[in-house]
Amino acid sequence: MHGPRPTLEAVAAHAGVSRATVSRVVNGGAGVRKSLRDRVQASVAELGYVPNSAARSLVTRRTGAVAVVIAEPETRVFSDPFFAQQLRGISRELAACDTQLLLMLLEGRTDYDRIGRYLAGGHVDGALMFSLHRDDPLPSMANASGLPTVFGGRPGWPGAEDDPELLYVDTDNRGGARQAVEHLLQRGRRRIAVITGPLDQTSALDRLDGYLDALGLSEPDPALVAHGDFTAEGGERAMAELLDRSPGPDAVFAGNDLTATGALRTLRARGLRVPQDVAVVGYDDLEQAAWAEPALTTVRQDIQGMGRMMAELLLRRLELGGASGGERPAPVVTPARLVVRASS
Amino acid sequence: MHGPRPTLEAVAAHAGVSRATVSRVVNGGAGVRKSLRDRVQASVAELGYVPNSAARSLVTRRTGAVAVVIAEPETRVFSDPFFAQQLRGISRELAACDTQLLLMLLEGRTDYDRIGRYLAGGHVDGALMFSLHRDDPLPSMANASGLPTVFGGRPGWPGAEDDPELLYVDTDNRGGARQAVEHLLQRGRRRIAVITGPLDQTSALDRLDGYLDALGLSEPDPALVAHGDFTAEGGERAMAELLDRSPGPDAVFAGNDLTATGALRTLRARGLRVPQDVAVVGYDDLEQAAWAEPALTTVRQDIQGMGRMMAELLLRRLELGGASGGERPAPVVTPARLVVRASS
Repeated sequence: MHGPRPTLEAVAAHAGVSRATVSRVVNGGAGVRKSLRDRVQASVAELGYVPNSAARSLVTRRTGAVAVVIAEPETRVFSDPFFAQQLRGISRELAACDTQLLLMLLEGRTDYDRIGRYLAGGHVDGALMFSLHRDDPLPSMANASGLPTVFGGRPGWPGAEDDPELLYVDTDNRGGARQAVEHLLQRGRRRIAVITGPLDQTSALDRLDGYLDALGLSEPDPALVAHGDFTAEGGERAMAELLDRSPGPDAVFAGNDLTATGALRTLRARGLRVPQDVAVVGYDDLEQAAWAEPALTTVRQDIQGMGRMMAELLLRRLELGGASGGERPAPVVTPARLVVRASS
Repeated sequence: MHGPRPTLEAVAAHAGVSRATVSRVVNGGAGVRKSLRDRVQASVAELGYVPNSAARSLVTRRTGAVAVVIAEPETRVFSDPFFAQQLRGISRELAACDTQLLLMLLEGRTDYDRIGRYLAGGHVDGALMFSLHRDDPLPSMANASGLPTVFGGRPGWPGAEDDPELLYVDTDNRGGARQAVEHLLQRGRRRIAVITGPLDQTSALDRLDGYLDALGLSEPDPALVAHGDFTAEGGERAMAELLDRSPGPDAVFAGNDLTATGALRTLRARGLRVPQDVAVVGYDDLEQAAWAEPALTTVRQDIQGMGRMMAELLLRRLELGGASGGERPAPVVTPARLVVRASS
């Protein structure tokens, strides 16, 4: 992190492009094709090049900062490693383009007005918002502020589907869940339960739909569904509910990895063997999944990559703001892939 | 978090004060005595009252936001629970006074210029900075920006001691370390090793001094000192170094709890019993300390409380900025207390 500051020339030599190309990329990238832009940005990141943004902001009237709002209390932001991974992807991408990440921490709904005022106050160039709930006021705040915004997760609010300008990055939650449940069917499981996430979030709804797809159902068997909230404690409680019914399940598809670790805890406490008595599958492939006892079968999504893509989309929209032509940014949906381990 | 928004009148009734007093507290607190101010702020927090800051900021020219800069890469911010706890204290205190916390994430030293520009750009009312290292550029940036700033941890940079305006919150690291090592002496340990933190931070230096105080030394026995970096991996490595020397230690004072959990890992891998063969004491009293195997003796500091006090000091300095009289904010040093568990 030390040493002399690299120059524009050093970046040009490293990327094998002209000084003018580096300058264009650093100042927004208009008129530079994507492959070239990527190469220059990689060199900028590797050398730690810091352009003279003070001069740049005089021209572009930018603040050089992007707000990140996670629609969860700060206690969840710091206890669920999902958010840390997503922020890592965002932070690296923004830093590589000399843009400051401002994480706006919040305690509850009463903080939203204040966040809306700050966003509308001209202190940031754009916003990234994720973990939104159905009745979240954030999308309309983003809209009212006039700030370019990219969402994490498929937007679920009324009217979202008809808005062609809406930018978001999501993963194929429905397809991932389907793979997980098909895998359990292939292992001969016949009473496959589901512990949902919070059903006011599209990720939880889509995973439930994937579960139903695999089983060929239009709605879940009430005996085999319990509601969680994407936390370990929620998984613990939901698993206990499922086991208190008779006959119990021989497999569980948990809404995410934290939920699955909670379910494992309850199964252990009740003296049930995993996977012999009950197979368990999670979702996310956090580090904890591989460490769990037994190691957790789960659905892998590229969480850090999704953060990076959110930042990329926003930076591209900011660049396009002042330029004509160029590729139009569009929503991205990344694939999900089953990772089989000992728990199933 | 839902329900109708509470009014100024509701806060006044709840706190048992006049409407004017609530208004004065909400608008800076000048001329309101501390006990009354605390009572009103508690009611504001409990009811979730959101004052009309848009109007307020027209009068006060405030942005309503405070920047928090942690002088560590974001990977450490999200992996060391110390930071989450400190941020929790800060976030709650700021939210209670309708002030937005902006966490400025950074990847490395090359990001500091950008942070300095943002701080100087008029986008925040003040800054909280912690985990500073000896040659950190942050204090001079804070100075150059003209922003009221409160530091976490005793400032260690040249000239800091002579600056009567400097505000910081620290804990009695030296006294806490002395308690830890005196406890090991009382348990009959005679070869007490130390694993330091990064010695460019005052917290690590002060804990080393406390270790030396308890042993009546002016510098450590080279056979009984190893250098860590406040991470579990660093503790693992340092413990291995200590055990590779002969004769080995019969006790270890680790720089913090993460370091201690790393040391426990190495001791387990070498087949040594804790505390029979080697006693271990940590520092911080994170949740992990109580869960460790065996449960960790450690030095408790009120981390969340320290975050709260940093925010309080800053808010008071901001209030005093526009007012005459009132209590002058001053640095705070909180006590540290030994918590004895199975590892010693």
